[in-house]
Amino acid sequence: MKASIPRPVERLVEAFARLPGIGTKTASRLTYYLLRVPDEESKELAEALLEMRAETCFCSICFNITVDDPCWICQDDRRERRHMCVVEEPLDVVAIERIQQFNGRYHVLHGAINPVEGIGPEDLRIGELIARIEGDAVEELIVATNPTLEGEATAMYLKRQLTGSPVKLTRLARGLPSGGDLEYADTTTLSQAFQGRSEL
Amino acid sequence: MKASIPRPVERLVEAFARLPGIGTKTASRLTYYLLRVPDEESKELAEALLEMRAETCFCSICFNITVDDPCWICQDDRRERRHMCVVEEPLDVVAIERIQQFNGRYHVLHGAINPVEGIGPEDLRIGELIARIEGDAVEELIVATNPTLEGEATAMYLKRQLTGSPVKLTRLARGLPSGGDLEYADTTTLSQAFQGRSEL
Repeated sequence: MKASIPRPVERLVEAFARLPGIGTKTASRLTYYLLRVPDEESKELAEALLEMRAETCFCSICFNITVDDPCWICQDDRRERRHMCVVEEPLDVVAIERIQQFNGRYHVLHGAINPVEGIGPEDLRIGELIARIEGDAVEELIVATNPTLEGEATAMYLKRQLTGSPVKLTRLARGLPSGGDLEYADTTTLSQAFQGRSEL
Repeated sequence: MKASIPRPVERLVEAFARLPGIGTKTASRLTYYLLRVPDEESKELAEALLEMRAETCFCSICFNITVDDPCWICQDDRRERRHMCVVEEPLDVVAIERIQQFNGRYHVLHGAINPVEGIGPEDLRIGELIARIEGDAVEELIVATNPTLEGEATAMYLKRQLTGSPVKLTRLARGLPSGGDLEYADTTTLSQAFQGRSEL
């Protein structure tokens, strides 16, 4: 039987299905949705994609995503050089900027150590981080990698690499998420919330 | 505080978030994923989008999506003209073709009657359907609109429109889905499964 899906439709389904968290069903749904919308809407998505890749790059200092190099944070002299926050992904920078509590600089590793997926320290921006810590005389390095196995492994690796360095390493607090329900907290979280309890 | 997300990145997040079922979080995740992949992969998605819109159209007979007009099903003389299956969406044609049990022709309505969203019969390809039924001397019209309020309303509307016509209208069977669990079936499904029970 001849295929009932036109090739250009199939091509888009396949391209969508390659994205993380998008299965074939969702990819089909998105594709058929885009077949029906006004031409401008599907063009906007295509152009936004091409523009984003064409007009952004990684900051040559902190490796965050930026239009101008260096990025606006690295260019801003009011941001403390003594405090540095190391994160896994550019989205983590966005999240931390949102809380408006950190006035230092960032360093984006672009991942975390993950032996299962074959990601080692040499695949991350760790060499550049260590050079910056020395060059900028960083006093505190907030290791804000994710509270996951990979994020912890990365934090531990950084700690070992910086043994003997005067920089103080800190890690974000672990505990119950605000608005969360104690009853539904997983055992690790609850155990860490207990260990980290503070006086009322 | 200056926005920490570059505008081209924000633009793509917004374009993704306009898609059905994609919230801002998923849109951000997809965008940052596409920032990291090789250039070809993000280009492939953009080009697939543009190509799909440029190279496909609706079949002028059945309104299915096609590269050639009329579509391959409408061009195929071995497909029975006497049997027609009316569906809401092009994806429904794909689903029915997959079971390899129907050798007739299709008619895609491009939606269902939905008063809440202001979609009336005049927004669907119903006029064209009725003209085809008469022109092709269709004997059986399988009304394969979805088993939803909107799909049922559309089926009822078609029944009324075709009163007095010699065409026989049929509807797909309702009952328990194969592989499903009776315990988890909703009351409507279970009730329909009871009503439609057959001798063992």
